[in-house]
Amino acid sequence: MEKTKLIIDCDAGIDDMQAIMLALSRQEAEVLAITCVNGNTNVDNVCRNVLRVLSVCNRMDIPVYKGCTKALVDHGKNAEFFHGRDGLSDLDDHPEVDLDSIQTEHASCAINRIVNESQGDITLIGIGPLTNIAVAIRLNPDLGKRLKKCVIMGGNTEGQGNIEDGSAAEFNFHCDPEAAYMVLHELSCPIIAFSWEAVLKHHYSWDWLRKILEIKTTKAIFHSYVLRTLLDKHNEWRLPGFMLCDPTAVAIALHETIVTKSRDVFATVELHGRLSRGQMISNNRHKPNVTLAQEIDTDIMMKLISNVFKEES
Amino acid sequence: MEKTKLIIDCDAGIDDMQAIMLALSRQEAEVLAITCVNGNTNVDNVCRNVLRVLSVCNRMDIPVYKGCTKALVDHGKNAEFFHGRDGLSDLDDHPEVDLDSIQTEHASCAINRIVNESQGDITLIGIGPLTNIAVAIRLNPDLGKRLKKCVIMGGNTEGQGNIEDGSAAEFNFHCDPEAAYMVLHELSCPIIAFSWEAVLKHHYSWDWLRKILEIKTTKAIFHSYVLRTLLDKHNEWRLPGFMLCDPTAVAIALHETIVTKSRDVFATVELHGRLSRGQMISNNRHKPNVTLAQEIDTDIMMKLISNVFKEES
Amino acid sequence: MEKTKLIIDCDAGIDDMQAIMLALSRQEAEVLAITCVNGNTNVDNVCRNVLRVLSVCNRMDIPVYKGCTKALVDHGKNAEFFHGRDGLSDLDDHPEVDLDSIQTEHASCAINRIVNESQGDITLIGIGPLTNIAVAIRLNPDLGKRLKKCVIMGGNTEGQGNIEDGSAAEFNFHCDPEAAYMVLHELSCPIIAFSWEAVLKHHYSWDWLRKILEIKTTKAIFHSYVLRTLLDKHNEWRLPGFMLCDPTAVAIALHETIVTKSRDVFATVELHGRLSRGQMISNNRHKPNVTLAQEIDTDIMMKLISNVFKEES
Amino acid sequence: MEKTKLIIDCDAGIDDMQAIMLALSRQEAEVLAITCVNGNTNVDNVCRNVLRVLSVCNRMDIPVYKGCTKALVDHGKNAEFFHGRDGLSDLDDHPEVDLDSIQTEHASCAINRIVNESQGDITLIGIGPLTNIAVAIRLNPDLGKRLKKCVIMGGNTEGQGNIEDGSAAEFNFHCDPEAAYMVLHELSCPIIAFSWEAVLKHHYSWDWLRKILEIKTTKAIFHSYVLRTLLDKHNEWRLPGFMLCDPTAVAIALHETIVTKSRDVFATVELHGRLSRGQMISNNRHKPNVTLAQEIDTDIMMKLISNVFKEES
Ligand SMILES: [Ca+2]
Ligand SMILES: [Ca+2]
Ligand SMILES: [Ca+2]
Ligand SMILES: [Ca+2]
Repeated sequence: MEKTKLIIDCDAGIDDMQAIMLALSRQEAEVLAITCVNGNTNVDNVCRNVLRVLSVCNRMDIPVYKGCTKALVDHGKNAEFFHGRDGLSDLDDHPEVDLDSIQTEHASCAINRIVNESQGDITLIGIGPLTNIAVAIRLNPDLGKRLKKCVIMGGNTEGQGNIEDGSAAEFNFHCDPEAAYMVLHELSCPIIAFSWEAVLKHHYSWDWLRKILEIKTTKAIFHSYVLRTLLDKHNEWRLPGFMLCDPTAVAIALHETIVTKSRDVFATVELHGRLSRGQMISNNRHKPNVTLAQEIDTDIMMKLISNVFKEES
Repeated sequence: MEKTKLIIDCDAGIDDMQAIMLALSRQEAEVLAITCVNGNTNVDNVCRNVLRVLSVCNRMDIPVYKGCTKALVDHGKNAEFFHGRDGLSDLDDHPEVDLDSIQTEHASCAINRIVNESQGDITLIGIGPLTNIAVAIRLNPDLGKRLKKCVIMGGNTEGQGNIEDGSAAEFNFHCDPEAAYMVLHELSCPIIAFSWEAVLKHHYSWDWLRKILEIKTTKAIFHSYVLRTLLDKHNEWRLPGFMLCDPTAVAIALHETIVTKSRDVFATVELHGRLSRGQMISNNRHKPNVTLAQEIDTDIMMKLISNVFKEES
Repeated sequence: MEKTKLIIDCDAGIDDMQAIMLALSRQEAEVLAITCVNGNTNVDNVCRNVLRVLSVCNRMDIPVYKGCTKALVDHGKNAEFFHGRDGLSDLDDHPEVDLDSIQTEHASCAINRIVNESQGDITLIGIGPLTNIAVAIRLNPDLGKRLKKCVIMGGNTEGQGNIEDGSAAEFNFHCDPEAAYMVLHELSCPIIAFSWEAVLKHHYSWDWLRKILEIKTTKAIFHSYVLRTLLDKHNEWRLPGFMLCDPTAVAIALHETIVTKSRDVFATVELHGRLSRGQMISNNRHKPNVTLAQEIDTDIMMKLISNVFKEES
Repeated sequence: MEKTKLIIDCDAGIDDMQAIMLALSRQEAEVLAITCVNGNTNVDNVCRNVLRVLSVCNRMDIPVYKGCTKALVDHGKNAEFFHGRDGLSDLDDHPEVDLDSIQTEHASCAINRIVNESQGDITLIGIGPLTNIAVAIRLNPDLGKRLKKCVIMGGNTEGQGNIEDGSAAEFNFHCDPEAAYMVLHELSCPIIAFSWEAVLKHHYSWDWLRKILEIKTTKAIFHSYVLRTLLDKHNEWRLPGFMLCDPTAVAIALHETIVTKSRDVFATVELHGRLSRGQMISNNRHKPNVTLAQEIDTDIMMKLISNVFKEES
């Protein structure tokens, strides 16, 4: 079987954890590297969280790279109100991981090196702010020419924000609008984006989730523990079901047919609004630069997620 | 029968013509004044176009007021590419109207005076850029307190623009973002907005329209002549049906039950973006200041429009 | 003697008080109206403060008009930290003035009416945010054609702000950037601006001021009382001398020769910056629309101010 | 003699040529690297121009690094109207240089590597848009901690722009406002900036320049040829004297005492204005992060420049 080669650029983050676990659970995936970026929490927390996930999955062989400590234009925001002080639901009692196992090469340099050494067959998955990828582009304008494709969790299609202050922007784009702008305008390989509004349109039933949370494999127990705080928030917000952000990007990267409806558009990023800074704005008038995944086969998605936790790795 | 008292602030404009004709055709409506604002075309053209419509409808008794010649922040744009050089499909051969019949009072002053003289029972309809209404508010912060309600054609709910340059804003709001901001934040009476995306979701069949265009009353012949250029554009753009913008605002003002689905939100206007200047941005976190009309009973709408043209006035 | 006819649009304010007192002290000036605008404090305070000053000067015959209660784009800021809670150093013990003596006509309407009734010989002085004048322009685009000139206290020439938050804008322009933009772009009569940097370059000695503060006429006693808090602030800020903002605009309006150095430039206003919103930006490339008063004859200025307080009015 | 170790980041550019020539002419300077960035012209032209200058100076031993091909937010502008199509007055007949002598390491990586290998004794000179340095900071947040200081040609102190479109920003900052923002906020070593207004305040006499242009050393002949077009422009603009931009930054780096007046301020960059995007905005309220060089000893400066051309290298 031809494996799909992946680099996952993440800001783990609870759903980044799910995304990584999903990627590691698939025989058809080969995770070449995980690169870490400031976002949901600071990049040192992100590195530690990735190592925690790799440790739980017995995959400490995968190289982890530390990347940018700030967005291009620093703003000091994060999403720790949602993901916890450590970015992963405050795993204070979890055994410490060995931070020395982080590679010394910078994430952006590593992305360029690995892609340059490849046969043009790598899929880059961006599930955090796109700072690392943007810096990689400035170091190497030809990055996109040697990528198979890029799958992004982020951006908007209908101006619906998920930032607390009434912004019209999605978190990953809002965190580094300039980086998102650079990626959309310059990465030049096929880009598939799973937008915030697409997330909102796919709810997964609480019953389904509950079954997963009751599984007693090591991975499932870790996953359940991390999700405990999230469920309270979903309850409080009276959401009609659970939402899957970052793992959907991994699923799309591995099985593009999971996308049952999509649209090719020209998309850019508003850099200058007060409420719309970071909003993705698309139109049909210019040459398309991104495929918006609009609908996902949730049955397949549920199977993919359920399979992650069934057996010990 | 209790009549609904209306002031119509417009930038006529092809669909403003339809809106005025609809209002004049209804027994349940009493049009107290038509106020003119720069928008689709310059305000002098707007005044002339309104007089043309009133003339065709034999309603030269309705006072017409000239208002602002520019948006608060002047930009020099209009929509003459769509509405014609004169704002009404280039009615060069149409008999001249008597521009001296325009009132000398400024539109914004007239709105304030008429509303102040009323019993608080006036519905203000804004189907152009909101400059006149914004200036009225600065002259009289209590304007909204003496209005029954305000119905607006304009704004966005999903960041879909209708400006040629890839902007995420709807034309009326884009033409005067500061005015739209002032109206949403300060008018303080019930505001109902029929957004651009709501327009896009309601198409009217070409067969239905064709029948209207074939009617041979004076009003219908005038209407058909004005629409001739529009139909070419709709063809060119391969639209699935005809769209009704401004007349829907009048219909909502007269029969709020025509709105079959709506949502109360807090809405504001982005003033500072490059692509999103003028975009309406809404959220559920703040106290609602506007009702978004999302779905319209198109059967009733079609009956209302058809009725306009059936008989001579 | 031909008198210079003045309309003073102000947001009194401590230095607005000085400006009004200066105008009233001059035989060569005829103050036709004082119009009030939101700025240093809310417009009701401004009206009251103007009446207080007129009362102290025995000039209750001058009509006072209330204008806009907010900037075009409301922001909720004022300068009460500097001018006191009431905008005039907290004159709590001062005898109440009769607010019913405020005219019922809106300031912007009054400006237009008085100018239209004139022989084109009126000088408009703007020493507050320019909201009233901007609204007057939207009501009457020809306002400037019937003005002799307009003298403004406000704007920047070197990006030096006087707002607390590190902004590069001067207070009056910062308070209503859109209004300042409208006035500069559309008022079309000769405009003279005394910018914040020009203020900074003219310091008046503490000794000179101390003598004025010791005068015992009614006006001087009132003036001294109002200035008591200001002097503390000047001390705290270690300013090399006293600064005269608004009264300099009046002096320029009455005696243009007091300007010993000036420059004609094209000036506009930045509306969209985060730190520079409201900054006046000028260049030599476009057709000049404003004369920047750069240097003032401070000897004449001191004589003018000293004369205000010498005799009882 | 202790030599001052320099890395020169440039966008050569006519005055970058002068800056490099000045640095190479000084015994007290050791140029460790020249790094190239998109700015006056595209980065490939910049690389070629640097090699041309090194070749003329017989210093092909100095390593040259190619950096960013675009600003962080790409805009497609350059200054070829001033510096020529090739960025160096269209040296079409000049012997071709060997572009293979450009190092393969990216400029931003090279800056970090060289600084990391140093004893903290390197002065970084930025005389182009600051993109390379900004990317270096994102790769290595500690860059500034290991720098002795950084001297920048760029930014504003009085809102006077040198961009053709009436902007209030200086070219280098205007070309990459986000990069300038990152450098000012994050480089954390002593930063000295020679602003555009400081340039404007120092004119060098035409007589002095004429003598230099008549020298017949190889370097002087090359320099004269490159300057031929510039002199026409200075004539056309009726400038009172010649201006020295980039070489002044080198002079400051080597002899800080050449600065006879300076001011420590907090400076940041406006990222969002329409006319002020890229404007440096400073105040005295926050902790200083930059020293503004306000006045320069022009006698010393003239001696330094004259010396460059006197003898063959
Ligand atoms: Ca994430
Ligand atoms: Ca309209
Ligand atoms: Ca004032
Ligand atoms: Ca340069």
